[in-house]
Amino acid sequence: MVAVIGRGECSDAEETIAKEVGSRLADAGAILICGGLGGVMEAACRGASAKGGFTVGILPGNDRHAANEWVSLAIAAGTGQARNMAVVRSADAVIAVGGAFGTLSEIAFALDSGIPVVGVGTWRLARGGIAGSLVVEATSAEEAVDTALRLVTERSTAQ
Amino acid sequence: MVAVIGRGECSDAEETIAKEVGSRLADAGAILICGGLGGVMEAACRGASAKGGFTVGILPGNDRHAANEWVSLAIAAGTGQARNMAVVRSADAVIAVGGAFGTLSEIAFALDSGIPVVGVGTWRLARGGIAGSLVVEATSAEEAVDTALRLVTERSTAQ
Amino acid sequence: MVAVIGRGECSDAEETIAKEVGSRLADAGAILICGGLGGVMEAACRGASAKGGFTVGILPGNDRHAANEWVSLAIAAGTGQARNMAVVRSADAVIAVGGAFGTLSEIAFALDSGIPVVGVGTWRLARGGIAGSLVVEATSAEEAVDTALRLVTERSTAQ
Amino acid sequence: MVAVIGRGECSDAEETIAKEVGSRLADAGAILICGGLGGVMEAACRGASAKGGFTVGILPGNDRHAANEWVSLAIAAGTGQARNMAVVRSADAVIAVGGAFGTLSEIAFALDSGIPVVGVGTWRLARGGIAGSLVVEATSAEEAVDTALRLVTERSTAQ
Repeated sequence: MVAVIGRGECSDAEETIAKEVGSRLADAGAILICGGLGGVMEAACRGASAKGGFTVGILPGNDRHAANEWVSLAIAAGTGQARNMAVVRSADAVIAVGGAFGTLSEIAFALDSGIPVVGVGTWRLARGGIAGSLVVEATSAEEAVDTALRLVTERSTAQ
Repeated sequence: MVAVIGRGECSDAEETIAKEVGSRLADAGAILICGGLGGVMEAACRGASAKGGFTVGILPGNDRHAANEWVSLAIAAGTGQARNMAVVRSADAVIAVGGAFGTLSEIAFALDSGIPVVGVGTWRLARGGIAGSLVVEATSAEEAVDTALRLVTERSTAQ
Repeated sequence: MVAVIGRGECSDAEETIAKEVGSRLADAGAILICGGLGGVMEAACRGASAKGGFTVGILPGNDRHAANEWVSLAIAAGTGQARNMAVVRSADAVIAVGGAFGTLSEIAFALDSGIPVVGVGTWRLARGGIAGSLVVEATSAEEAVDTALRLVTERSTAQ
Repeated sequence: MVAVIGRGECSDAEETIAKEVGSRLADAGAILICGGLGGVMEAACRGASAKGGFTVGILPGNDRHAANEWVSLAIAAGTGQARNMAVVRSADAVIAVGGAFGTLSEIAFALDSGIPVVGVGTWRLARGGIAGSLVVEATSAEEAVDTALRLVTERSTAQ
């Protein structure tokens, strides 16, 4: 299970990347989990759906019919942005495409739980005493998916 | 999608009913959603799983590996009992087997959203100005599942 | 700290009772906690405020300015109805005035934590194996406040 | 109302800064809001309490008695780290002292709501297309408090 995160309204470039991320995840047999709404979330679900992939959308509100039409299984969390925790903590790895502050909160919760985060054009984080970026940077959908799947394998092998 | 709710530690009688509820839901092709832990939740998942059914568990904590082993898809909500809202509001109908106060909160959230609740040995509710019981009572797993599926059909026809 | 719960839109009779409950709690030196919005919540805060009482409102949304004007301290929980848990679990006792399903969920969470609930015209609960009503019934604001404060004292003495 | 955020286990240097931040906020007449637990949260509450300040603690669990002893008003949110949203969104400004991933999520939620964040030794954030740091950096407790209070004034004047 891999989470794809990013804004509900995104640029055309982000949409193209998100769609290809979804498509490649489906090809690899991964379940895609996301926030279930528009923008990056919708593009990723559409890409996965076109390849017959299974997609899970965790919605902020009480109505699961608010999910985009490419969500296979919609969960109405009803807890607003607290659903961001569920999206990333239910995944084995996270791929961020662009993203604003909501995405930043998701990156924080993922890293807090030791779940690897790969980003394309997303936040760069630094803190005194912690060297380098904490988000693994990728420059394409292909690199992002390959890196995420490799990190999942490495992590499960290490455990 | 039908939610099955009840205590994490339950009586043998409740376990038997919950298992048969899960089994009958799988036979009917319904996806089962629950809180993902033990007791009624585990028995229902086990019953569904034995018939090849698909089960979703929405967990209160941050670790999705806390799910019982018959959960097909585990979501780590991380919001404690606020996950009770997600369990029932993601469903088309709810079946309560026994249950204490956590189950009562789930019944409240389901009824608040107009989602029908069928109960076997669960809470009876009354309020001035509201006639009769608000939970449809059933006396067996078979009756509970048949009633829940009928209420889903009636509701979708009415909409 | 005593929670006052009930609907965001209430009858005139409920408003009168809620206002007197707030007034009497302030007279007794209790802090009033509620969901911060209109109806019963607003009436209780207004009653407390008129007597110089301190009121806390736990709001469902992200904007604390949505609180009614008699809230002394507003918390923007941002988790929708999951804030119902915070309202009752932060209190030593709960007084329910009328109320629909949201109120029922709050009663469930309070009883789940062993926090006493006194009700005026609210839900009657019954379950096989549990005798009598689980909400202590009162017929006036005076009786509700006296009973709630007595239950708090008895409980703290017992511990 | 100013939020003070940081780790539940912190260094001696962070503790000293947090305590002085709390003290200076109380001197300025500000209410301090935090996560109610140990480390930076406890030090800030202790500093405020020594000057007669009022402190609010929003706890992740269901038991409000888990609050540190310098919390004036404890709220048991019961929603785990989702309480991080409430801590920052109930405030007019946020002061971060050090901090790991939980603090990063709080910074994200604050900036998402347009609430200014001042940091001492905390996260540096960067994203393509967004120039500079999004957290206003301060090098002492005095500078952090002065900056936070100035930003609150500027913001309320602008509105």
